[in-house]
Amino acid sequence: MNNDTIYNEIASTQEVSLGVHGGTNPMGKGLDARLNKVDQVVAWMGERIDMRFYAPGARVPSVRQLAERLDVSRFTIVHAYDKLVAAGVLASRAGSGFYVASSVGEKIIAAPKADALNEQANVNALDTTWLMRHIFSDVAEDRSPGSGLLPKSWLENERVGVAARAVVRLCDEHIYDYGNVQGYAPLREQMVVQLHKIGMAARPEHMVTTQGVSAAIDLVARYFLRPGDAVLVDDPSWFWLYGSLRAQGLRVIGVPRDPDGPDIEVMTRIMQHDKPKLYVTNSVLHNPTSWGVTPARAYQVLRLMDEHDAYVLEDDIYGDFHAGAAKGAPALRYAALDQFKRVFYIAGFAKSLAADLRVAVLCCPAEHIQGITGRKMLCNMVSPELNERIVHRLLADGQHRRHLERLRQRIANAHARLRENLPKIGLVYPPLTQDGLFIWLDTGVDTNALAIAAMNDGWLIAPGGLFSPNQGVSTFMRLNVARTSSEFLAWLKIYLSEIEPK
Amino acid sequence: MNNDTIYNEIASTQEVSLGVHGGTNPMGKGLDARLNKVDQVVAWMGERIDMRFYAPGARVPSVRQLAERLDVSRFTIVHAYDKLVAAGVLASRAGSGFYVASSVGEKIIAAPKADALNEQANVNALDTTWLMRHIFSDVAEDRSPGSGLLPKSWLENERVGVAARAVVRLCDEHIYDYGNVQGYAPLREQMVVQLHKIGMAARPEHMVTTQGVSAAIDLVARYFLRPGDAVLVDDPSWFWLYGSLRAQGLRVIGVPRDPDGPDIEVMTRIMQHDKPKLYVTNSVLHNPTSWGVTPARAYQVLRLMDEHDAYVLEDDIYGDFHAGAAKGAPALRYAALDQFKRVFYIAGFAKSLAADLRVAVLCCPAEHIQGITGRKMLCNMVSPELNERIVHRLLADGQHRRHLERLRQRIANAHARLRENLPKIGLVYPPLTQDGLFIWLDTGVDTNALAIAAMNDGWLIAPGGLFSPNQGVSTFMRLNVARTSSEFLAWLKIYLSEIEPK
Repeated sequence: MNNDTIYNEIASTQEVSLGVHGGTNPMGKGLDARLNKVDQVVAWMGERIDMRFYAPGARVPSVRQLAERLDVSRFTIVHAYDKLVAAGVLASRAGSGFYVASSVGEKIIAAPKADALNEQANVNALDTTWLMRHIFSDVAEDRSPGSGLLPKSWLENERVGVAARAVVRLCDEHIYDYGNVQGYAPLREQMVVQLHKIGMAARPEHMVTTQGVSAAIDLVARYFLRPGDAVLVDDPSWFWLYGSLRAQGLRVIGVPRDPDGPDIEVMTRIMQHDKPKLYVTNSVLHNPTSWGVTPARAYQVLRLMDEHDAYVLEDDIYGDFHAGAAKGAPALRYAALDQFKRVFYIAGFAKSLAADLRVAVLCCPAEHIQGITGRKMLCNMVSPELNERIVHRLLADGQHRRHLERLRQRIANAHARLRENLPKIGLVYPPLTQDGLFIWLDTGVDTNALAIAAMNDGWLIAPGGLFSPNQGVSTFMRLNVARTSSEFLAWLKIYLSEIEPK
Repeated sequence: MNNDTIYNEIASTQEVSLGVHGGTNPMGKGLDARLNKVDQVVAWMGERIDMRFYAPGARVPSVRQLAERLDVSRFTIVHAYDKLVAAGVLASRAGSGFYVASSVGEKIIAAPKADALNEQANVNALDTTWLMRHIFSDVAEDRSPGSGLLPKSWLENERVGVAARAVVRLCDEHIYDYGNVQGYAPLREQMVVQLHKIGMAARPEHMVTTQGVSAAIDLVARYFLRPGDAVLVDDPSWFWLYGSLRAQGLRVIGVPRDPDGPDIEVMTRIMQHDKPKLYVTNSVLHNPTSWGVTPARAYQVLRLMDEHDAYVLEDDIYGDFHAGAAKGAPALRYAALDQFKRVFYIAGFAKSLAADLRVAVLCCPAEHIQGITGRKMLCNMVSPELNERIVHRLLADGQHRRHLERLRQRIANAHARLRENLPKIGLVYPPLTQDGLFIWLDTGVDTNALAIAAMNDGWLIAPGGLFSPNQGVSTFMRLNVARTSSEFLAWLKIYLSEIEPK
């Protein structure tokens, strides 16, 4: 991953914090050396307000604190704060200090940074981008328990290079032409085999490839929904969903998710009242909770969909991590129950193979494949066959099952460690969690504040508020079990001991 | 490219025609052998009506003609036509034969083929998909003068394999993680060099990569426009644009394009009346005409954009084929005039490097890069760095300029051949054409009918009507100079001699 462009600004913010902790002068390092010191502080603060490190109405560090932290004179900070007050970004309250102006909200100082996004997109999308930007920034792997990927070292596998080399050796076959609009046929045929193992009778001619799971969700939503339409998601669920669906002008409605599945009573009311045409969900190892769905709930969901002429969009990107019936409940998928009548099913490979390949396979109900394919063509024509061929080789390879088994074992071990260690810092390992990539941990404190404190100390965490459609304050956070080190738990222990429970 | 899925149906249609010409019984070959003969004819006709070989209101072959053509009994055809009349697909007129019911339009017989598309998308998108489907079907290279790509043999270049192998050798560096949201930084830096050569001062931090030019257009349109908004395009222009923009719910308005550029008077009226925020165009070697834009016109366009707070979205995918000032006018690009104030500029590599890579680079005005990046993240997260690294290597390679020069020379030779040979079949080589991939040829006859006749004889051509926002009948067609063989010209000569001019 490259440290450049707008992510420089985030990275530089991190450098500043880390630099301070390391005792070096951060100003000449993280920020643009051509700016004078006052403007550097203005930019530093502007970035943090933009990133919501300091939310509207929040108090910012005192002059003395910030001068010490940034290793500049108080005079510099006073001038910088003056400028920020004059610009309407900070407000000064006599005897109490400086606060982020509550009207400032999305106002950006370090122009031209986010003006366009704020003007253009709906404001709700901004909170999502907070974490998104950090996820795509340069926080080190062992500093990012909030990440959504396994550590590289867990995935590294010589098979990937072997497959890629084999595909490019034959690239003359395909690279000069557009591939099939529905995707590389042998990959779709291989998916029939894969899906058969988990109980689905899928057909290659009802599949279409997309540039990752996100593009599949975007595509199905664009196909079914128009601005103003309602769309149903789990609460909590993957934060990207809220930003993406809202950017389409959709009304995103959350249905509470418990360890058995979505709350059917609430869902029934929403279906009757808001008439969503689509319910986007993970049934297996749901993000962020690693919960599943019971057969009874799944059946009720499908009945509701049928009754209201709506569809489930089942994102199964974590499914590879489920060991079947090995631990607790077997993985239950909507598509396996319903066999693609009311279910669109997405298989993705970013989590278990390699994120950069950007390939997902979307399986559609027969009557929608033509429409979905046409829509894909009108969105971005075709996907690169090169990448699909690599995925195909990896799936078709006899070693694939062993690779997944190894990953599952390591993930299970990580869960065991957390189950043992969380009580030691006064936290409860969530009892109904299955062995997925995440646990959904109640910290008892405001995790937005926790995230900011963590970021200041160089940790990337995923505060629970991001995973809810209304993105308020939450005491939960999503922990990536494979990236939660004892160092982080030690940090967390100190943080929790110093802060008052909420 | 693979012959499967829905394209089977198209391919099978072609097989039928070709099979007839080859004297074999097509019925057991192209169509589903499990259907009885009557249903096979019903499906055969249904497909052609769906594909608009036979448009609403058009007369279909007589019973005798079709019986001969498909090598089945007249009895079979009579029964099939009866079924089609009963289904409301055909209408019989006493003494005159059978016609496609004018109400049938998008009605599909061979369900579930296109029902969903018709129900879902706006009907206008369908005409676009007509050609799109064929382009992604299996028509042989030397049978497709309507194609938008150079022949594979012109592009084949060992450098591509070398670059791809070099990139995958190092794939451990990047393949397990998501790349930079704005795209692989060295590629963006290389683009600064490339664009500098054509007069643009671009900055890597103002660029974002997309999955090909189509995804860049989709992205900018989604960023700027809301359903119901107007968007300006050239008339004629790339047919995909109409379908794609309309699928977003936009009002697509065409401004007539002549060899000097868009008609400024018409454009002024449209800007005042419909207030489009975006004008999507090719300035260099415009598709389908291979015309450019004069400095005076370009200046007026930019003034208009400024005045109405609108933007040019300049798709420069054909720019690599322009030899600078070698032939006629130098290539004038909006972005070179305006330096990214009112211009979004897209560089694509499908035409001059390799279509399957699916990489484009979008250069944005500084104040929009943040918004565009955020929007890309909410559409489909990140693009595969793998593909961007391959493009980077190819561009950075010292052989790249030589490769382009070779292509230009071959294209220029193809133009010279057409300039010589078109008059021999009674057609005029369009005088103001520059040496691009296409010529925009006036045939003097209805090119929709020409396209159908051509398809029946196994040729894929691109009728002019597709390139107009209202997609009516046109006497023009777009010819790919690199794929227009003397065999096709011979076929065209016969066709034109047998048909009455319109």
